[in-house]
Amino acid sequence: MRKHNFGAGPGILPEYALKKTQEALLDFNGIGMGVMEISHRSKDFEAVLNKAKSLVIELLKVPDTHDILFLQGGASTQFAMEPMNYLNKKAAYIDQGAWSGKAIKEAKLFGEVNVIASSKDKNYSYQPKGYTIPTDCDYLHICSNETIHGTQVKTFPTSPIPMICDMSSDIFSRPVDVSKFDLIYAGAQKNMGPSGVTLVIIKKDSVGRTNRVKPTMMDYKTHLENNSLYNTPPVIAILVCMHVLEWLKSIGGVDAMQKINQQKYDLFYNEVDNNPMFTGTAAPEDRSPMNACFLLKDSALDEEFLAMTKAADIVGIKGHRSVGGFRASMYNALPLESVKVLVDVMKEFARKKG
Amino acid sequence: MRKHNFGAGPGILPEYALKKTQEALLDFNGIGMGVMEISHRSKDFEAVLNKAKSLVIELLKVPDTHDILFLQGGASTQFAMEPMNYLNKKAAYIDQGAWSGKAIKEAKLFGEVNVIASSKDKNYSYQPKGYTIPTDCDYLHICSNETIHGTQVKTFPTSPIPMICDMSSDIFSRPVDVSKFDLIYAGAQKNMGPSGVTLVIIKKDSVGRTNRVKPTMMDYKTHLENNSLYNTPPVIAILVCMHVLEWLKSIGGVDAMQKINQQKYDLFYNEVDNNPMFTGTAAPEDRSPMNACFLLKDSALDEEFLAMTKAADIVGIKGHRSVGGFRASMYNALPLESVKVLVDVMKEFARKKG
Repeated sequence: MRKHNFGAGPGILPEYALKKTQEALLDFNGIGMGVMEISHRSKDFEAVLNKAKSLVIELLKVPDTHDILFLQGGASTQFAMEPMNYLNKKAAYIDQGAWSGKAIKEAKLFGEVNVIASSKDKNYSYQPKGYTIPTDCDYLHICSNETIHGTQVKTFPTSPIPMICDMSSDIFSRPVDVSKFDLIYAGAQKNMGPSGVTLVIIKKDSVGRTNRVKPTMMDYKTHLENNSLYNTPPVIAILVCMHVLEWLKSIGGVDAMQKINQQKYDLFYNEVDNNPMFTGTAAPEDRSPMNACFLLKDSALDEEFLAMTKAADIVGIKGHRSVGGFRASMYNALPLESVKVLVDVMKEFARKKG
Repeated sequence: MRKHNFGAGPGILPEYALKKTQEALLDFNGIGMGVMEISHRSKDFEAVLNKAKSLVIELLKVPDTHDILFLQGGASTQFAMEPMNYLNKKAAYIDQGAWSGKAIKEAKLFGEVNVIASSKDKNYSYQPKGYTIPTDCDYLHICSNETIHGTQVKTFPTSPIPMICDMSSDIFSRPVDVSKFDLIYAGAQKNMGPSGVTLVIIKKDSVGRTNRVKPTMMDYKTHLENNSLYNTPPVIAILVCMHVLEWLKSIGGVDAMQKINQQKYDLFYNEVDNNPMFTGTAAPEDRSPMNACFLLKDSALDEEFLAMTKAADIVGIKGHRSVGGFRASMYNALPLESVKVLVDVMKEFARKKG
């Protein structure tokens, strides 16, 4: 019996991908060796890498102007690679919460940062809007989904300067117009695979914009020129991603996924908005379908509610300390059924305690 | 039927570790979630991390002065982190082959490099010895085992300056006096686990030796202060490492492993030295038990020999292009039986063609 896993990440993965990975560990493709035991330059692994790549391209309709990389070090490493590769003088950042905060801190090591909008005044419970993007900056950094605060950018701005986006917590959850971005990155461990690999979608002609000395491994050019094989890539993590993307394609791709995510969103938020005991923390128009933050109006009941969710095999629902209460992360692989179970517990809780 | 896997890396892993990893993918520890689907801050994963750490400490007798990190990016990333964290003015490097060559190239981005010894004159077929370590350098870089050229440092120098060692291809193959080093690192994918995680053993009071601006992720201090949990670590790769180290402990640790590796070495090199058709490329006193490079005296027979090894279920034996011929990588997990099979093929080849 698998749990109803609402964890914020590393998050739930499709059983299909887990089972396919199991099969690959001792004897991959019938070659008498496990997938972790073969050369990353073997035809068997190159097929995995290229399949994963082509699935990203197909699912996100990545144009020919862009290429796909699988790197290591998570978004935390990207927070440094981004300014090292794109920041000459000044960059514009939007202060949307914990993750853009980390990105801003890192960029300041390498140049001037112009924070052009912020939602800090209300503990990042909404997405800044109506800001003007300055044309004297090298790029605009934006985070598509705030995992901790439960908000999402619904419409990306049309930017007069190159736009760079951290999509770690909502990539593959909805269609995205890749052509609007010079760089997109995402740690895999929410919607794409396990921790240990980072997807990078990069506009090919955007490399080489800075001349600063950078470690070879932190230069996008290195990885572009070597098809992510400059050094040994995280083989097993890429295999899992490939299988997750196969699963996503099999259910109809990101359009179908978005519809399912919307069903989960509607089911959950309908309950939050109608159940007298609960309240959502994010501004309704900015609510994220990936991470839903909510509170009991009477926080003295928190432990009791948690215990009831636990009894229903729900896990990972405790809120982040900076928001409190609860957080239901409803990543791609979370079944609608799990949301129904959660909603039923919320209803039952209201009946018992309301 | 598993192949006789002589691949240079990612290399063969113990079946025990592969099977334990299989079990963890869908339902880890009976918690109803797979190991890749749980928070890296959960007690279940922290137990994995801490067990892996304590096994490294136990197996290598790591003193209290040092700590253990599990990072991402491979030795290639360490080649940059090393000078970024330790090089103020000048560093001493030994030019032992392909891997120290990469380390030297990277260090030059950050300061002056004094190459104090080299074996380039004979295509890196021996280990430089008898060199004087200058006292005006910030550290000495040494690579313990040359994967490509098949040589190993048998005795580490007593260094008057901090010593840093890349042990990617022979860590855990023999005992090592960790106290001699300020920093040891090793990509996992030879003797410790899958690609995607890098073991770092660092002398705690050696952090903070440089003041240069460095990405947060490339500062050892970041990871030391956060027990490798500053960001999401490569969970599945660390789990595999834990199981590989459990296996190593179960067979008696690095002392027992060294004896088994010596048996494999003796069996293999005895054949190379006595079979009239073959010759080893490395200087006998520097031959690596991990990677044995050898040639057919008549290279016109290469394809025929390769075909015969293939028929015997031997894989990964083709030599690196910079040395040619053949390379038998005999990592910890390679059974003695596999070496016997190879030696039998070599004998049979000599009978047929000699």
